[in-house]
Amino acid sequence: MTDKDQYKIHTEPFYQAQGDEVELYEAAYAARLPVMVKGPTGCGKSRFVEYMAWKLGKPLITVACNEDMTASDLVGRYLLDANGTRWLDGPLTTAARIGGICYLDEVVEARQDTTVVIHPLTDHRRTLPLDKKGELVEAHPDFQLVISYNPGYQSLMKDLKQSTKQRFTGFDFDYPEEALEADILSKETGIDLDLAAKLVTIGTAARNLKGHGLEEGISTRLLVYAATLIKGGIDPKPACRMALVRPITDDVDIRDTLDHAIDATFG
Amino acid sequence: MTDKDQYKIHTEPFYQAQGDEVELYEAAYAARLPVMVKGPTGCGKSRFVEYMAWKLGKPLITVACNEDMTASDLVGRYLLDANGTRWLDGPLTTAARIGGICYLDEVVEARQDTTVVIHPLTDHRRTLPLDKKGELVEAHPDFQLVISYNPGYQSLMKDLKQSTKQRFTGFDFDYPEEALEADILSKETGIDLDLAAKLVTIGTAARNLKGHGLEEGISTRLLVYAATLIKGGIDPKPACRMALVRPITDDVDIRDTLDHAIDATFG
Amino acid sequence: MTDKDQYKIHTEPFYQAQGDEVELYEAAYAARLPVMVKGPTGCGKSRFVEYMAWKLGKPLITVACNEDMTASDLVGRYLLDANGTRWLDGPLTTAARIGGICYLDEVVEARQDTTVVIHPLTDHRRTLPLDKKGELVEAHPDFQLVISYNPGYQSLMKDLKQSTKQRFTGFDFDYPEEALEADILSKETGIDLDLAAKLVTIGTAARNLKGHGLEEGISTRLLVYAATLIKGGIDPKPACRMALVRPITDDVDIRDTLDHAIDATFG
Amino acid sequence: MTDKDQYKIHTEPFYQAQGDEVELYEAAYAARLPVMVKGPTGCGKSRFVEYMAWKLGKPLITVACNEDMTASDLVGRYLLDANGTRWLDGPLTTAARIGGICYLDEVVEARQDTTVVIHPLTDHRRTLPLDKKGELVEAHPDFQLVISYNPGYQSLMKDLKQSTKQRFTGFDFDYPEEALEADILSKETGIDLDLAAKLVTIGTAARNLKGHGLEEGISTRLLVYAATLIKGGIDPKPACRMALVRPITDDVDIRDTLDHAIDATFG
Amino acid sequence: MTDKDQYKIHTEPFYQAQGDEVELYEAAYAARLPVMVKGPTGCGKSRFVEYMAWKLGKPLITVACNEDMTASDLVGRYLLDANGTRWLDGPLTTAARIGGICYLDEVVEARQDTTVVIHPLTDHRRTLPLDKKGELVEAHPDFQLVISYNPGYQSLMKDLKQSTKQRFTGFDFDYPEEALEADILSKETGIDLDLAAKLVTIGTAARNLKGHGLEEGISTRLLVYAATLIKGGIDPKPACRMALVRPITDDVDIRDTLDHAIDATFG
Amino acid sequence: MTDKDQYKIHTEPFYQAQGDEVELYEAAYAARLPVMVKGPTGCGKSRFVEYMAWKLGKPLITVACNEDMTASDLVGRYLLDANGTRWLDGPLTTAARIGGICYLDEVVEARQDTTVVIHPLTDHRRTLPLDKKGELVEAHPDFQLVISYNPGYQSLMKDLKQSTKQRFTGFDFDYPEEALEADILSKETGIDLDLAAKLVTIGTAARNLKGHGLEEGISTRLLVYAATLIKGGIDPKPACRMALVRPITDDVDIRDTLDHAIDATFG
Repeated sequence: MTDKDQYKIHTEPFYQAQGDEVELYEAAYAARLPVMVKGPTGCGKSRFVEYMAWKLGKPLITVACNEDMTASDLVGRYLLDANGTRWLDGPLTTAARIGGICYLDEVVEARQDTTVVIHPLTDHRRTLPLDKKGELVEAHPDFQLVISYNPGYQSLMKDLKQSTKQRFTGFDFDYPEEALEADILSKETGIDLDLAAKLVTIGTAARNLKGHGLEEGISTRLLVYAATLIKGGIDPKPACRMALVRPITDDVDIRDTLDHAIDATFG
Repeated sequence: MTDKDQYKIHTEPFYQAQGDEVELYEAAYAARLPVMVKGPTGCGKSRFVEYMAWKLGKPLITVACNEDMTASDLVGRYLLDANGTRWLDGPLTTAARIGGICYLDEVVEARQDTTVVIHPLTDHRRTLPLDKKGELVEAHPDFQLVISYNPGYQSLMKDLKQSTKQRFTGFDFDYPEEALEADILSKETGIDLDLAAKLVTIGTAARNLKGHGLEEGISTRLLVYAATLIKGGIDPKPACRMALVRPITDDVDIRDTLDHAIDATFG
Repeated sequence: MTDKDQYKIHTEPFYQAQGDEVELYEAAYAARLPVMVKGPTGCGKSRFVEYMAWKLGKPLITVACNEDMTASDLVGRYLLDANGTRWLDGPLTTAARIGGICYLDEVVEARQDTTVVIHPLTDHRRTLPLDKKGELVEAHPDFQLVISYNPGYQSLMKDLKQSTKQRFTGFDFDYPEEALEADILSKETGIDLDLAAKLVTIGTAARNLKGHGLEEGISTRLLVYAATLIKGGIDPKPACRMALVRPITDDVDIRDTLDHAIDATFG
Repeated sequence: MTDKDQYKIHTEPFYQAQGDEVELYEAAYAARLPVMVKGPTGCGKSRFVEYMAWKLGKPLITVACNEDMTASDLVGRYLLDANGTRWLDGPLTTAARIGGICYLDEVVEARQDTTVVIHPLTDHRRTLPLDKKGELVEAHPDFQLVISYNPGYQSLMKDLKQSTKQRFTGFDFDYPEEALEADILSKETGIDLDLAAKLVTIGTAARNLKGHGLEEGISTRLLVYAATLIKGGIDPKPACRMALVRPITDDVDIRDTLDHAIDATFG
Repeated sequence: MTDKDQYKIHTEPFYQAQGDEVELYEAAYAARLPVMVKGPTGCGKSRFVEYMAWKLGKPLITVACNEDMTASDLVGRYLLDANGTRWLDGPLTTAARIGGICYLDEVVEARQDTTVVIHPLTDHRRTLPLDKKGELVEAHPDFQLVISYNPGYQSLMKDLKQSTKQRFTGFDFDYPEEALEADILSKETGIDLDLAAKLVTIGTAARNLKGHGLEEGISTRLLVYAATLIKGGIDPKPACRMALVRPITDDVDIRDTLDHAIDATFG
Repeated sequence: MTDKDQYKIHTEPFYQAQGDEVELYEAAYAARLPVMVKGPTGCGKSRFVEYMAWKLGKPLITVACNEDMTASDLVGRYLLDANGTRWLDGPLTTAARIGGICYLDEVVEARQDTTVVIHPLTDHRRTLPLDKKGELVEAHPDFQLVISYNPGYQSLMKDLKQSTKQRFTGFDFDYPEEALEADILSKETGIDLDLAAKLVTIGTAARNLKGHGLEEGISTRLLVYAATLIKGGIDPKPACRMALVRPITDDVDIRDTLDHAIDATFG
């Protein structure tokens, strides 16, 4: 038997609501409607799902999707054993059996067989056929499916099919408002609010460069990194260069622009 | 022996006929002619097949097709066992043996070997050669093959070959008429007919945007989602945004257009 | 030992010759020359081969070719057994051993390794090297190889190599003449000749649209489907729409054109 | 131990020399130089190699190359056995061990790993490293490597690398002169020389169409097919259409041109 | 149990700091922030990571990434054993368990599944789900992840996703200043500083050609090679040609330009 | 234990130095610097490496690289045995363990994982991590890595990465000077110097056509083939056509040009 408890979130994750997303999620969960969480890199999508799993007291099974993942990686496979083959449930099957929330992170990355495999779990059937095992799993009443994706990544090559999309209810996420984000930085790392506000200023500057040389803005996560380094004794300027600039660009001009913004802020 | 009963539909699925499709299907089944069900995402194709299986009292084996599915996934394969290899029938073989309806959902997604494998089951031979096992399965007299596909998805790259298409009789499906759809919403979720009619209005608006920025219209399924959220206590506006708009578009303009339609309807 | 009898055709298949093809095939078989049967979808190629196998009293082993088929699928492979690996002959090897007619249906679909593997069986050597088994199979004196293909499908990407083509004698097949086709419809389904002639009229109309919006004309098989539905009590118009039109086109204009032809014929 | 005798050619193959190719081959074999035989489809390349193997009294191991063939298909692989894995020599390794002539037919079709694997066998080393077995096979003194290919097939995508080509001595082959070809037809099938000459006339006509609508001319093999059908009682005209025209073209104009040539010849 | 000691660096690697990178790395390690080391070929990225592992006294597990590497190569896989399958941790899992620094060298080369697999190890979760084993590994408190990449190699086809990049703090590396590099050469190979300075001159000349016919400049490593050959008794000119020029270019003009620079320096 | 002796070169290979390459190689080997040997097809690169292995008295393990070769083919893999899996070292691992020279012939052909796998063996680490076995092999002090490649083959698609190139010292090879080449031909085959000089003349003529219709010039190896055939009693003209012309071109004009050069030389 899979140990349900190993997937429970035991301590409340740090999460600050940006609107009515907590209530809406609860209503979707109450009807067991599948949920799609959309938004840019590092804006807190995964944290939100983790928070809801904690709040609802349900096990959370997270799968980082990727283009080499097969349906078997989700559903399960046979392993060779001393007595022949033995079936091993994949994370999706496990979640369906124990009544957990199955969270497919960055689902657009996955190949089609991954996304099609979730179809019978997301309509009135709520079943998962294990074709290779000849078993039809009925989802536990607590089971729910959640997926995340970043609309900025979509292309003609990689997008969810409408027949998949139309099985979900959806949320739009974004970076928090400036004041809220400074508050988050301060609470999560212990730096004072002034310093946090300065970091957020740099973040905002970078987010305005999105589409003008930057693929994505600076995420809340990277602001937390910078705050952590500063809290650890590093001077703000090298800390910001190391945490906010070097990871996100190799372009000399963009790098200089951001470095100047840092110098201006902490000059 | 496979348990035939596990594939039987035991309770009548909710289905409201739109025309003479039930009689036509019964005639096709009487002659065991293969059936192709065509139509847009979420218009009720799978529900119809399920209903017919229930009405005819036959087991239904559904396979969600995908481009990584191989012929073996349909036909079967050898598994390693304590005493060597053991053959495991795939869903198509199981259906052929027990006399079930085998439903290949979104068959265009499958690779050619999947679609070619059904050929000898769809002409006067009604056989399925298991080349890897060296067995020639004669289909049970009750066996029938049904496939579905969405004409809007076809492209030069992905289409059924004529030599496959010309083995089927066909139905065109579409979203129900407005009054019928409102009736379905009300019956399935318990909301009153007025509210249901308003939701259908939004659906109709979105379906008119198909080809003008929307890949597909809002499906009946999503309308059911919205009704479910409202029935669960969520205000109609956020419920509609979450169930009808966020899942189907990432385009800011289209999103705003649809949001305004929602505001206008529930203003 | 493979059971030769399981591949024998025990009852005479319904077949009406269109010309001297039966005598020519017999001469080719007498010299064991390989045969290539060419023609459009559903014109009776497979039925002809089945008929000849019955007439000659030889086992027939049919393989539906596809682009995922490997040489091993034809020739055979090792299976893991309680006592190690065990060789399993593929359909081509079985036919070569028992002296059957091996029929590779839609051979252009197969990958090159399939088509190259037949070379030593189609010249004076009449051998099949099982490289993986280290055995050189001498074909049984009764063995013959037959392939089919649809010239309309060929493209730059998929065509038989000349070095393969030049190992075969060839037949051109086509849909039967109108009178003959009506006769076939009537004999096979029991509808009267008048009705059969009307159906053939629709078939002829559709075949004239080939290349003008239709990829292929309506096959004899689909005409049989329509006749079967009518015989089963369905009105001719919906029966024709379901059997002759819906399966072959998703184009609204073409569909309307064909529907009008049906209305005109049965008006 | 592999049975050397199974690869010996026991009866003299029918072969008529076109020039000094027999002496040149003998000199190349005396020095064990690798040989490349070039020429169009069905002009007798394989027959020549078979003849030389018979004349030299050496075992002949033929491999029909194809683009799905791997190095393991040539060199060998491990098989699973009751006592674990067991190594099985591939055809190239067998030839190297028993001192046979290894003939790689249509070698350009093979993937690079096939062609690279022969390098150490074709220079002063005359060795074959079985990397997967950790063995270095020294070729038997009688071993020789022969490859064939059709220059007309080469393209930018598929050609032998110069580093492979420059390991071979080469022969250019072509269809026999008209008189010689008629003689071959008559000797091989028993038809009289007059009829044979007429068939050769059609062959010559078709070869002149090469590059003007025909990919390849009619091979000697197909002329033998036509002669065989006529000898078997079929009228020359349908025999020629079936053996010389239908296999090589799907183009209506070319087909008519060739049919007229047949009518003119046998009119 | 994996032997932690086998991954410890027991002797201090030769490393000369170019700035404050050692302190910054220590601060990142103190907070266990993931680190990304960027810079051109052979400028000392790997040496720096090795030095830090030695300085911090942590085991170092290095993985040379490549495009054929799968997630299983990082995470682990099942091996077949006398008693069935046995799980074998991959290098990433080993590092997470023993509390080592896992260094993914040239991470852009890896396929997406490699880079996605590190996500849960690089945020607050610090876990690694072994989906195939059904185990959730909590990283040892000492575990840290480091990646390197060369910005000059990036292309549209190969780049880290922003959702991966934004999980790292970053360093820009470059070749050392001239005086420092001469010092390094002299200390590492024992040649005198004058000679070392001359070699550095040639290196600088070549680095100026980057983008003007040279893909990359001459690395510090190659300068060390040249110094080693000279120390081993080879004349400076052929030593430089062999170590600095032949490896990096096949272009005749560039080769002559560099050879002249060598002649001028040692003329 | 691998038998070291099986890889030793026991008799001196025929090799005539063209310059100071022997001394330079000895210096590189003394410092165990990796070596890259560059030059056109058949100019003696492999012979040189073999000669150096003999001169230094070290085992030589040669691997013919190809695009289907995987890292496992170099490093090793698990085999299934009566008692479960057994590890089998690949050629690179064997060379690293026994202290041999590992020669990767035509390394550009290999996939990236092959070339990346050699990185830790080619810097100060001199280690080879066997990730799948969980072992870190320290190279034997005598181990050295040598690669060859033909600059003429490089393309945008296939080239060594700079991060690989910059781990090697390099040699440029070319065909020998005319007099030296004639000397080689005479010494290796026993023909007199006059005849050898004539053959070299033809070789030179062909090398001038490189880039003007010929992909590569005639290699020294092919000249040796021609000399061998002549020594074996074949007339110079057919011997040259067979050994020098047929293998390297299918172009009629180039073939005639070269045939005329042969006629002129031996007229």
